[in-house]
Amino acid sequence: MTKGSSSPGTPAILLLSGGLDSATVGAMARADGFALHALSFDYGQRHKAELQAADRVAKSLDVVEHKVAHIDLALFGGSALTADIDVPKGRTDSDRDAGIPITYVPARNTIFLSYALAFAEVREARHIFIGVNAVDFSGYPDCRPDYIKAYETMANLATVLGRSGTARIEIRTPLLHMSKAEIVAAGTRLDVDYAQTTSCYDPDEYGRACGACDACFLRREGFAAAGIADPTRYKAS
Amino acid sequence: MTKGSSSPGTPAILLLSGGLDSATVGAMARADGFALHALSFDYGQRHKAELQAADRVAKSLDVVEHKVAHIDLALFGGSALTADIDVPKGRTDSDRDAGIPITYVPARNTIFLSYALAFAEVREARHIFIGVNAVDFSGYPDCRPDYIKAYETMANLATVLGRSGTARIEIRTPLLHMSKAEIVAAGTRLDVDYAQTTSCYDPDEYGRACGACDACFLRREGFAAAGIADPTRYKAS
Repeated sequence: MTKGSSSPGTPAILLLSGGLDSATVGAMARADGFALHALSFDYGQRHKAELQAADRVAKSLDVVEHKVAHIDLALFGGSALTADIDVPKGRTDSDRDAGIPITYVPARNTIFLSYALAFAEVREARHIFIGVNAVDFSGYPDCRPDYIKAYETMANLATVLGRSGTARIEIRTPLLHMSKAEIVAAGTRLDVDYAQTTSCYDPDEYGRACGACDACFLRREGFAAAGIADPTRYKAS
Repeated sequence: MTKGSSSPGTPAILLLSGGLDSATVGAMARADGFALHALSFDYGQRHKAELQAADRVAKSLDVVEHKVAHIDLALFGGSALTADIDVPKGRTDSDRDAGIPITYVPARNTIFLSYALAFAEVREARHIFIGVNAVDFSGYPDCRPDYIKAYETMANLATVLGRSGTARIEIRTPLLHMSKAEIVAAGTRLDVDYAQTTSCYDPDEYGRACGACDACFLRREGFAAAGIADPTRYKAS
């Protein structure tokens, strides 16, 4: 969670979903001089458009390499993103505050970070960037600061890399305490092309956003609050 | 890491490799009354015989279900078990004590436990059994007690299950401080049929053990020290 300077070319792992948040994190890490090793997941999500977006964003970030891990999060069931459950539309703030979103995937960030940790160990990268942020606190247990801190402690005991030398493995979460509007504003200053990214849980076959799901709602609000034009391609309603 | 009693039918996740250790852990958990949900991994390991053994052991343990997750640990390279590197033969105690075994797979237990945690969340199982033990301490950072404790802390923050109610999620490691001989003796008392299990890193096409790799060496030593006949099928040398 801590911040640290980097020598140019210091290797870092970037968890890259193809969404707005991870594209912004990648731009921040690149601006800080890290050589990025990007990692995305093909986990049977409905929105394959994400992986196409991740590929576009990785090229923009001039990453050293971009790996895609195929994982089967649907194996145990339990989420609208991986199982055959309708993605909810038209959710409101009060819905989001009420409890765990149906879009919660059990232990998702723990699995993602664990692959990132394996990648970090092999590349001797002591920095792992992940785009968790405060907007998700209420619903997702694995987006909270205490979780990230505990993960970092575990990661340093789990690996030869973490147990050797004096530098610690750091889980870097620059968006942790930022609002969506602040994220959009920060990314825009770093020339992130948000038209390359996708956030929608239910895009159409052309990759156009539904404009109605929780993710679309938060994304729209972010651009509006930042006073920045929303470049997202939406379906005709 | 803590011990706890179970009501008959209390659900538990069992990480089941098909090896001697996890078969013993499974027998212990079953004797303690848990309803076992077994989880194995197809991770491109050379020894597919492991998965066949896991299937046999799962049936013997009368598990509620047995899931096999396909994961790609070879994606990042870095281990003789997943990459195209020769498995070492004829290792000695002094070799093992000298450092990290070439058979170390980066972050393997972290990835395995993370899938187990997702499974636990969906099945509302607060007990995850894993067969790590003291013999592996010297070489593998992710077999050490401090690592297991840190993982457990993280797991309770990572999940809705861990954050709700008063009972904690427990990473159960009954073999942690046992020697191979003690494990074999304990399993034999619980009627574990070790002929169903496999430990060899380099078995032949019939699933017969090489008798020469590190895993075969430890297994043989364990049976010998326990004074129990070794039922392992070895290749003709």
